[in-house]
Amino acid sequence: MSELTITTRLPVLKISADQHGWEDDEIVTEYPLTIFLNDEEFATIVCTPADLEEMVIGFLAAEGVIKSYSEIKQLTINEAQGFAYVDLHKETILSQSFYSKRRITSCCGKSRQSFYFFSDARTAKPVESTATVTPAQCMRLMKELQASSDIHRQTGGVHNAALCTPDEVLLQFSDIGRHNALDKIYGKCLRDNISTTDKILVFSGRISSEVLLKAAKIGAGIILSKSAPTDLALQLADELKLTAVGFIRNDKMNVYTQAERILLP
Amino acid sequence: MSELTITTRLPVLKISADQHGWEDDEIVTEYPLTIFLNDEEFATIVCTPADLEEMVIGFLAAEGVIKSYSEIKQLTINEAQGFAYVDLHKETILSQSFYSKRRITSCCGKSRQSFYFFSDARTAKPVESTATVTPAQCMRLMKELQASSDIHRQTGGVHNAALCTPDEVLLQFSDIGRHNALDKIYGKCLRDNISTTDKILVFSGRISSEVLLKAAKIGAGIILSKSAPTDLALQLADELKLTAVGFIRNDKMNVYTQAERILLP
Repeated sequence: MSELTITTRLPVLKISADQHGWEDDEIVTEYPLTIFLNDEEFATIVCTPADLEEMVIGFLAAEGVIKSYSEIKQLTINEAQGFAYVDLHKETILSQSFYSKRRITSCCGKSRQSFYFFSDARTAKPVESTATVTPAQCMRLMKELQASSDIHRQTGGVHNAALCTPDEVLLQFSDIGRHNALDKIYGKCLRDNISTTDKILVFSGRISSEVLLKAAKIGAGIILSKSAPTDLALQLADELKLTAVGFIRNDKMNVYTQAERILLP
Repeated sequence: MSELTITTRLPVLKISADQHGWEDDEIVTEYPLTIFLNDEEFATIVCTPADLEEMVIGFLAAEGVIKSYSEIKQLTINEAQGFAYVDLHKETILSQSFYSKRRITSCCGKSRQSFYFFSDARTAKPVESTATVTPAQCMRLMKELQASSDIHRQTGGVHNAALCTPDEVLLQFSDIGRHNALDKIYGKCLRDNISTTDKILVFSGRISSEVLLKAAKIGAGIILSKSAPTDLALQLADELKLTAVGFIRNDKMNVYTQAERILLP
């Protein structure tokens, strides 16, 4: 496990009420591991790159592929490529209807870091957004999102997502699934013909690669979160030209990518 | 949308430092919706049952199935059954290797509420656990989990899971994916032959149905969380005989199921 790191240092534009400046900060690593089972591609897990062997064994057991560790003949992990090769003593019968299987391709001959999930490669493209926003507006929008999230306060288990102008929340949806809250915004905009390129997405949860890809598909140029981003999400934000802002709380915020859309005082 | 509720009231054993008693509390609803695309089963989404039409449209667009709303000929939702039927103008070409597809069956002729995902029906069974724990031990274990989670404090984006005796943390894993942290525990126990039936699982994230099922597969009889459970997770906890404890913070905790494993003072 020596080569893989579970966090990485990246430059961040840190903004508080009375000052701002670039500083390096720790960003959590998001690492895709593709499992091959008896030489057949089985699943890709996006994870923290530590204890990968334990994760693969546990995943296969949880999915019902193995019942005990002794069913595994060999397990080897290629950390640099992000591949795990599992040979079982028995032949596997993979029924595709049981298992989710997603493909990863590395795009344009670039490194694996610029991967997209296959279905995303067809639907995500760089956003063309004219949106800009000030730090004060970011903080106000986040407060508004939280204030109106009654269900979250009541039950503590729901993600909130909103589509906003710099000055107001236009649409807001809640869901226990972070992706569902974003899908609801996407569906509403498609059905009701609501333009998104001039809008801002405000989200209660972490900015993972999947969340970032959803934001790009929706077409918003700015995503605001009260939580942390992952390194993979920030790489995608760079490529897809999205402004990612995290840790919006206590009158502070971190701008990670495309900072030119944030109008500094 | 009138029949579906996004929370439900359930009896909870509320424990604080100096008192305890049963009270009704709001629990967030977790609702499985299965989407049929041109009469073929396409995907099941576990969600909050509100704004389902928007979610289905957005999900299909995010997956690259549709590009615009006009591609949908008809969209009908059977709320009681949890089915969404989508007819597209074009014929769909569903490549199973692109899409995750999971099946739901209702077990034993019981209501849909007692569903299991298909792969889970084969691997999850009622736990046979001898574990017991006091409220003070629960609170101490949760504090220990949080104190040792340096990466979480640094980067704000990681779930922690630990396997414990009533008195100490035995194993602990972190991951950006909540399921991965649990899979790492499962894999470690399988590989190293660590018994689980007398152990306690401590988790930083929400107790969703999937988390609960993982806990049952691991074989632990008690799961402790600092967050909320969902209603579906609690139904499964009842069936699988797991003790689910949530909101462990500020010297308080809520016991939702199988309370006999919690030794009251």
